[in-house]
Amino acid sequence: MNNFSFFNPVQIHFGKQQIAKLAQIIPPHARVLLTYGGGFIKNNGIYEQVTNALAHHEIYEFGGIESNPQYDTLIKARDLAREKEITFLLAVGGGSVIDGTKFIAASIKQPNDPWDILAKNEKINSVVPFGSVLTLPATGSEMNSFSVITRGEEKLGFGGDPRLFPKFSILDPEVTYSLPEKQLGNGIVDAFIHVLEQYLTNDINTPLQDRFAEGILLTLIDEAPKVIELKDDYDSRANFMWAATNALNGLIGAGTVHDWATHMIGHELTALHGIDHARTLALVLPSLLRFQKDHKNQKLLQYAHNVWGIKASTPEETIENAITATEDFFNSVGVPTRLKAYNIGEAEIEKIVAAVSKHHPYGLSEHRNLKSQEIQSILKAAI
Amino acid sequence: MNNFSFFNPVQIHFGKQQIAKLAQIIPPHARVLLTYGGGFIKNNGIYEQVTNALAHHEIYEFGGIESNPQYDTLIKARDLAREKEITFLLAVGGGSVIDGTKFIAASIKQPNDPWDILAKNEKINSVVPFGSVLTLPATGSEMNSFSVITRGEEKLGFGGDPRLFPKFSILDPEVTYSLPEKQLGNGIVDAFIHVLEQYLTNDINTPLQDRFAEGILLTLIDEAPKVIELKDDYDSRANFMWAATNALNGLIGAGTVHDWATHMIGHELTALHGIDHARTLALVLPSLLRFQKDHKNQKLLQYAHNVWGIKASTPEETIENAITATEDFFNSVGVPTRLKAYNIGEAEIEKIVAAVSKHHPYGLSEHRNLKSQEIQSILKAAI
Repeated sequence: MNNFSFFNPVQIHFGKQQIAKLAQIIPPHARVLLTYGGGFIKNNGIYEQVTNALAHHEIYEFGGIESNPQYDTLIKARDLAREKEITFLLAVGGGSVIDGTKFIAASIKQPNDPWDILAKNEKINSVVPFGSVLTLPATGSEMNSFSVITRGEEKLGFGGDPRLFPKFSILDPEVTYSLPEKQLGNGIVDAFIHVLEQYLTNDINTPLQDRFAEGILLTLIDEAPKVIELKDDYDSRANFMWAATNALNGLIGAGTVHDWATHMIGHELTALHGIDHARTLALVLPSLLRFQKDHKNQKLLQYAHNVWGIKASTPEETIENAITATEDFFNSVGVPTRLKAYNIGEAEIEKIVAAVSKHHPYGLSEHRNLKSQEIQSILKAAI
Repeated sequence: MNNFSFFNPVQIHFGKQQIAKLAQIIPPHARVLLTYGGGFIKNNGIYEQVTNALAHHEIYEFGGIESNPQYDTLIKARDLAREKEITFLLAVGGGSVIDGTKFIAASIKQPNDPWDILAKNEKINSVVPFGSVLTLPATGSEMNSFSVITRGEEKLGFGGDPRLFPKFSILDPEVTYSLPEKQLGNGIVDAFIHVLEQYLTNDINTPLQDRFAEGILLTLIDEAPKVIELKDDYDSRANFMWAATNALNGLIGAGTVHDWATHMIGHELTALHGIDHARTLALVLPSLLRFQKDHKNQKLLQYAHNVWGIKASTPEETIENAITATEDFFNSVGVPTRLKAYNIGEAEIEKIVAAVSKHHPYGLSEHRNLKSQEIQSILKAAI
């Protein structure tokens, strides 16, 4: 096991009717900015629950944060927050709204150009406190200190600063009943791949973290059909929601080796082709695993056995069957695993590879062995 | 899944050479009281590591906290802390030292009799901040807000207040190399039973928490022989240490049904007969599981299958074999599972039952079905 630091001070309020707690957990004299996305929360009762809970608070609102939160939009939110002298931000949405709200919170009191937080890893002066009401289980942003922001064709992350954890996150599985199937499928795949990026790496003797990782994967596999088919099954939504949060809250990755190459390549697919984040991961991961099967041999065999119950006649076949099972699983929740589903062919790949290489000149993966040529091979094999 | 709140702000520093970080993580102008147990830390280099790290801090020390921390001892520590105007406490030890330090931290500024915190659940006025350097993986006190204190024949707990979490805990697996086999065995059993008290209860559809619980149990089972036999095997000590911390940090118990009857009965065995905490649990648990096998049927079968790989010809036999496997496991790390090992027979049981009934008049277990008569049956069957 590697040395590690673990710190996660997010207060989770999980379950039915938890949104009403907002009345107590946001300071009474706070000037609150409610942030949200496309207005979905106004059609399904969530907005009403939130504003009812905050009936005695001074609240302002900023809607329209995109599914890949755009820098320019967030700067408008920052300007509003400054104008209204906001002292608390409440993100009501999925990972994009929460990621965007982290950036707003970090920008309000930033004296210099806030773009430098992303582009130059500039120190954040001060973070306005914020909380979240999660509406889409997927990214884990509700219980971590990371955020990814898009500006034009640049998709950049920041985080790791303890001030960037939400003060609290409210996880009410019932708010997911109204989600479209596409978003549920995306969320399942996103959480699944968050786990794999922290688990399918060098084996450095971390059996507890491995078992926790496998526990999340098995839970997602078991719950996924119920999540997709049943629109108001509380237990499967609750199990999915808590699994997705634990997929990226620091726990399973403490002391382990991380990869994240799939994410870094996927980010460019979103930036250049506008494909949903989770969907980009499902395009890259299977091909990447096939390419890295020697490097990841031991963990891929463990994954095959412990998660899929696969033990074929040769190790190679076992690994190939596990990767195929993974593809089938993604497809079963409506998420394609081939670039052709988005009309991306050889012609488009060069620009994607160039973008990855620009942002990651020293190579990707836990072995730093993925440079331009290797990434090109991975993407070509994913057509 | 039940509704739950989860909050755990303890900063964990895990791994080799982490004690040196004390120099940075304790505020520079703090007046520090170092608390410890029987002086074991002065023979194995831990005391030296700690005091070297704190060379530029103002430190005082209080040793002699017992393995079931005694109220009168802790009051002496409180008096010293008041006299020296201590502003930070550093517990260097196992669960008893950390539990005791939580009580000292809560007592220093308590205007009324601090016994009332335990006996009357009195509100704590203020908690002096504290951290820990863990020397014995076992109780989980390093990453939770609970504490158990002994005064004469009373063994009472307090906690659940967010101020009672350590600010940080340093977990260096190398400090366990010098532990005697008896303490290692106790620690393994303690952690194992912490998991079972949160897992072998009503099945309310919590597959993620169950898999996390099973992951801890399997890790303890796999690592235990190496922990006992190899005196300086870093990986097994690291895996044991992190498993024990996760056994009682709130994670596996979030949203599940808890039992804790074994702990409550065990506390009286410690209070009346001075048996080590973990050892009392190993005496009570197997007999309690046999007594409760109908109530716990579903989870006992799951435990048999998923943890022990047992599937006998009948469910009854499967459950009995799993309980026997549990006893064998405890015995394999040197922990007895029968009262006769401590010369406790029928004559002593009555007083134990009376003490449990006094402290828990409404019955124990998740079903509140364990009252005097049932507890007597459980203990008699454990002779």
